[in-house]
Amino acid sequence: MATKLAVLGATGYGGVELVRLLENHPAVELAYLSSESYAGQRMCQVYPHLKGVDMPLRALDAAEVTRECEFALLSLPAGKSMEIVPRLLEAGLRVVDISPDFRLREAAAYRQWYKVDHTCPELLAQAVPGMPEWYRDDIATARLVAAPGCYSTAAVLALAPLLAEKLIAPEDIIVDGKSGVSGGGRTALSLPFHYPEANEDIAAYAVGGHRHLPEMIQGLAELAECEASITFTPHLVPMTRGILLTIYATPAPGVEAPALREALLRYYAEERFVEVLPAGQWPHTKWTAGTNLCFLSAATDKQSGRAIILSALDNLGKGMGGQMLQCLNLMVGVDEATCLTTSAAYP
Amino acid sequence: MATKLAVLGATGYGGVELVRLLENHPAVELAYLSSESYAGQRMCQVYPHLKGVDMPLRALDAAEVTRECEFALLSLPAGKSMEIVPRLLEAGLRVVDISPDFRLREAAAYRQWYKVDHTCPELLAQAVPGMPEWYRDDIATARLVAAPGCYSTAAVLALAPLLAEKLIAPEDIIVDGKSGVSGGGRTALSLPFHYPEANEDIAAYAVGGHRHLPEMIQGLAELAECEASITFTPHLVPMTRGILLTIYATPAPGVEAPALREALLRYYAEERFVEVLPAGQWPHTKWTAGTNLCFLSAATDKQSGRAIILSALDNLGKGMGGQMLQCLNLMVGVDEATCLTTSAAYP
Amino acid sequence: MATKLAVLGATGYGGVELVRLLENHPAVELAYLSSESYAGQRMCQVYPHLKGVDMPLRALDAAEVTRECEFALLSLPAGKSMEIVPRLLEAGLRVVDISPDFRLREAAAYRQWYKVDHTCPELLAQAVPGMPEWYRDDIATARLVAAPGCYSTAAVLALAPLLAEKLIAPEDIIVDGKSGVSGGGRTALSLPFHYPEANEDIAAYAVGGHRHLPEMIQGLAELAECEASITFTPHLVPMTRGILLTIYATPAPGVEAPALREALLRYYAEERFVEVLPAGQWPHTKWTAGTNLCFLSAATDKQSGRAIILSALDNLGKGMGGQMLQCLNLMVGVDEATCLTTSAAYP
Amino acid sequence: MATKLAVLGATGYGGVELVRLLENHPAVELAYLSSESYAGQRMCQVYPHLKGVDMPLRALDAAEVTRECEFALLSLPAGKSMEIVPRLLEAGLRVVDISPDFRLREAAAYRQWYKVDHTCPELLAQAVPGMPEWYRDDIATARLVAAPGCYSTAAVLALAPLLAEKLIAPEDIIVDGKSGVSGGGRTALSLPFHYPEANEDIAAYAVGGHRHLPEMIQGLAELAECEASITFTPHLVPMTRGILLTIYATPAPGVEAPALREALLRYYAEERFVEVLPAGQWPHTKWTAGTNLCFLSAATDKQSGRAIILSALDNLGKGMGGQMLQCLNLMVGVDEATCLTTSAAYP
Repeated sequence: MATKLAVLGATGYGGVELVRLLENHPAVELAYLSSESYAGQRMCQVYPHLKGVDMPLRALDAAEVTRECEFALLSLPAGKSMEIVPRLLEAGLRVVDISPDFRLREAAAYRQWYKVDHTCPELLAQAVPGMPEWYRDDIATARLVAAPGCYSTAAVLALAPLLAEKLIAPEDIIVDGKSGVSGGGRTALSLPFHYPEANEDIAAYAVGGHRHLPEMIQGLAELAECEASITFTPHLVPMTRGILLTIYATPAPGVEAPALREALLRYYAEERFVEVLPAGQWPHTKWTAGTNLCFLSAATDKQSGRAIILSALDNLGKGMGGQMLQCLNLMVGVDEATCLTTSAAYP
Repeated sequence: MATKLAVLGATGYGGVELVRLLENHPAVELAYLSSESYAGQRMCQVYPHLKGVDMPLRALDAAEVTRECEFALLSLPAGKSMEIVPRLLEAGLRVVDISPDFRLREAAAYRQWYKVDHTCPELLAQAVPGMPEWYRDDIATARLVAAPGCYSTAAVLALAPLLAEKLIAPEDIIVDGKSGVSGGGRTALSLPFHYPEANEDIAAYAVGGHRHLPEMIQGLAELAECEASITFTPHLVPMTRGILLTIYATPAPGVEAPALREALLRYYAEERFVEVLPAGQWPHTKWTAGTNLCFLSAATDKQSGRAIILSALDNLGKGMGGQMLQCLNLMVGVDEATCLTTSAAYP
Repeated sequence: MATKLAVLGATGYGGVELVRLLENHPAVELAYLSSESYAGQRMCQVYPHLKGVDMPLRALDAAEVTRECEFALLSLPAGKSMEIVPRLLEAGLRVVDISPDFRLREAAAYRQWYKVDHTCPELLAQAVPGMPEWYRDDIATARLVAAPGCYSTAAVLALAPLLAEKLIAPEDIIVDGKSGVSGGGRTALSLPFHYPEANEDIAAYAVGGHRHLPEMIQGLAELAECEASITFTPHLVPMTRGILLTIYATPAPGVEAPALREALLRYYAEERFVEVLPAGQWPHTKWTAGTNLCFLSAATDKQSGRAIILSALDNLGKGMGGQMLQCLNLMVGVDEATCLTTSAAYP
Repeated sequence: MATKLAVLGATGYGGVELVRLLENHPAVELAYLSSESYAGQRMCQVYPHLKGVDMPLRALDAAEVTRECEFALLSLPAGKSMEIVPRLLEAGLRVVDISPDFRLREAAAYRQWYKVDHTCPELLAQAVPGMPEWYRDDIATARLVAAPGCYSTAAVLALAPLLAEKLIAPEDIIVDGKSGVSGGGRTALSLPFHYPEANEDIAAYAVGGHRHLPEMIQGLAELAECEASITFTPHLVPMTRGILLTIYATPAPGVEAPALREALLRYYAEERFVEVLPAGQWPHTKWTAGTNLCFLSAATDKQSGRAIILSALDNLGKGMGGQMLQCLNLMVGVDEATCLTTSAAYP
């Protein structure tokens, strides 16, 4: 029996990626698609390329979802998830949420970064971080999974092993992030994402204060038992998909690139979606487009001895829809890579 | 028992697309990959995103191919295919070839357009055009399939039904083509495809004399029993994948858009890779990226009454690797859509 | 004494291009900049790259404009220009307007295409089309100049000589248009111009019914005394600036490419902003970026004999701000090329 | 009397930018253009957008250059400049060179980074660094000016004031560089700059060992009397023009963003091509396209206290052709901004 599934926010970029990945899933049945912008239309009308998904789009109605579904993937804006998640959980549904609403452990931190009070802080403790490489068993049995942000996923995958093994200093980390424009979403059109503005340009944004920063720090604290101090500067790059992080850190005395690579391999050699590159090869975001892969490299700068770690993924793949599906697969008990094995279309 | 397969020219854009599509194929085993540029390396070194394809790349050796394989997909430059195809066929292999070497029925036409003599003209008659929508049964039993060019596929799919039903005049057709840059291939670097030249620019090329023109005319002659006169102007568009054709034609008296659409639907309603759009909707190449789909629209211009037919596909998908795989599936007797069901990653 | 000038709509893409071009103008003084979106800020704050334009942006106030200025360049949306132009003219200002409000001669045509009644139809007859190559003397003395649209400029420049000399048939013209995304403007954000949607895609829009069509037909009627029937299909191309038209027409008996080129040269050899390319060379939009140039080519298709005319310009240059400045230069009596001589930054 | 000028390497991207900028120069006459790739053609044939530059391209002949010119701008590959510069200087020409051949003070450093022996090391001492903001008087009277690389210019402009005033620690500097693809030049086509490879991708390159690094360190040593230790990681960004540096440094105790900004302003407030942005505003490379401007911002990260300095310029403008012209203007004694006052075409 296929699990009946709702995708809430099905016409945003996260939602349409989820629907694409789930289209041929053997253990899951797409049963409910919500969309505020296109309620009343059918998915294959709004997105003709999904011609096989001839399903209605409905304005989100929690009663309908709980009646018709056992599972829900939420790709809703910040603030919207926490409105509906309690009802879904009460009705017995299991939930994977990509919004920031259940990522931070502390309601106070949520208030600090998102400027509103959390409406169901009691759920924060039970939300499992949706990063299978580090929380696989907890995810498998979780009722509520909070998938991390795209930047956080790329940063935590790269840094957690190195910090856990004390190969780099936690107090001196710089994360220079480069993101494609789809990270800005589809629903709220704004000038920086207008084609003539974003095209043929690169610029930093949210200098010194991006909302993914507290997630990174919290995630690394949990996984590596350290208090990381991170300077995080994101940049908008004229491409649709992809995140590349260039991470600078101070290695422990005597630590050079091979030791960094070996540490990454110790954690990820058996992982199917994290690939540690050979020495001297640096990741391209193009390799990750449309996939659930994260590529990692480690180097040390010859002159300064500083560690340079590179981390690349697709912000809508391992950074969003792919990782959500990976969690879902664990939760419904099928092979973790189900519907996630297609390589990137290159070029 | 899986069919042992060679991909010849595995590191060009057509080859890497084929390898990607075949990676998880249930009935075919990748047994031989050739590459002149990267012989001696492994596929997953050259293309780290294909991390599962840990196979050697070999300089093409016909004796090895015939010894080790039953089937070959050729993504070689013009002139190279006709050197090796006779030996492959003699050894009993079945072949799908994407080069122009076996597309034209007449050796004289080959000489006219490609400026060299054909070296095995006797094979031209037995090559089956690799367009399943029109040659499905012949492909299933063929020994040699000549997959049509990307522009030809887009044009013939759009025009053949309308010409066969005499809904448009064959003597007055204009095909305005727009192609992404990957159509120029990967091996032979040239200035028009250098990023700073191609980016932020659009221009026509090969005005009045592109090599895909004789294919289009020959294909339409076979399928619609007409002598089409076509003005074909291709343009280079600053994007990686995708072809859009805007086709202008004179409709037969009394014929308007609905009749054109209905004719397209009569031919393609049951086809899984050709999608006729509802009235008033025009295809986007983005919908086809990485897929085997072709989208068609038909309109008539209110003022002039002229027919406007739009045809969009991925030059590396339905225009190349996808269509080759569709042929292969027919030839080995599996579901025609095997490994071709993933929708485009949007956006 | 420099002419005191207002740029109304100074922060849209047309406005910012005008301000850039006028920044160093020897005979004109920027005296008034209006912007509804940014009223109260200064131009150099909104656009730091215009660091020398340290002027306030004001909500448009006709009384202020008429009090402080002698000349106005209007880059306002359709419907807004006709609200203010009568007051400007009454106060004695001279006006160059880029909106469609004064382009069509007939109020009925305006109503048909823009769905609102024209509020000052009496001014339509006195508006001079702002294309100096054809209306130079009238522009020099005009009080109201209506600059044509970007597509119309490209089409009329290419077609008027050929129709005037009866080298092509007026009843059978196809204009296949390709435009960069900046043609959609800056103020009204909409989904087709959202970076992830427009990037890596090409599609047709407004098939059979674009608003620039009546302008083209009217312009050709005036200049070539013919009733042209034009099928016009615009496409959105993933680049910021540039328009390329690929025009198909039936030549008069015996007319081939050289005769077409010679006709274009007869009209434009002395023009400084229209460049007829040598035989066999096709224009690139990249050559026009940021300039007032239009490049033209003429060919005949070997097989069908059909004429193919290519026309390229920058939609914000010769298609908008550049042409407006060319008109302004004529009107104030300076060299027509003042501030328009910088070549495109290549690549 | 206009100075007779040679542009050597006139058809590469640096050369064509120089020709564009010089086209209307009041004090300089373009007298000699060299090009190995296009010798025998005319500039306006190779680059139709430079329609006014109807001059022959010649294979470089030192005797001709010295006979016909008084000044030479060299945009030649590494190794080629040092072959010809001695002869030019002997013949009394003054030279601005953009190659790396005369940038490093020590022949040993040249050998280390460029893997060949320097052929005229005696000239290294007399070459003046071509950065007018710091070497204005020396440039004015120099016979040989070595214009710095694009990355170096962006880094030295940003860092020299802060190091000179001891506001940041020299031993702990990270320069994360992002460059458009035109930085790779035009002549030597290579795969990373092939459109389908570079488009929709971002990746690091030359990690820990880019050739501009010794220039930066040498430049800062001269200007700020310090031994800077810099980790420099360049990245290739899918855009044509533009460099953005995100620089991380440790501020001196008590130093925060305002002090950093004020230091930059102290050095650059009177400079016409270096613009220090207001607090909270970060530079866009788009603002610099086609211009000689460099935009600088300074911030301090709230959490870590680290300094973040952003520096943006056009790699072909202030990073190449623009800066060379700025030097030329100083050397021939005209206003430093001659032909450099046009703002960027936006968007």
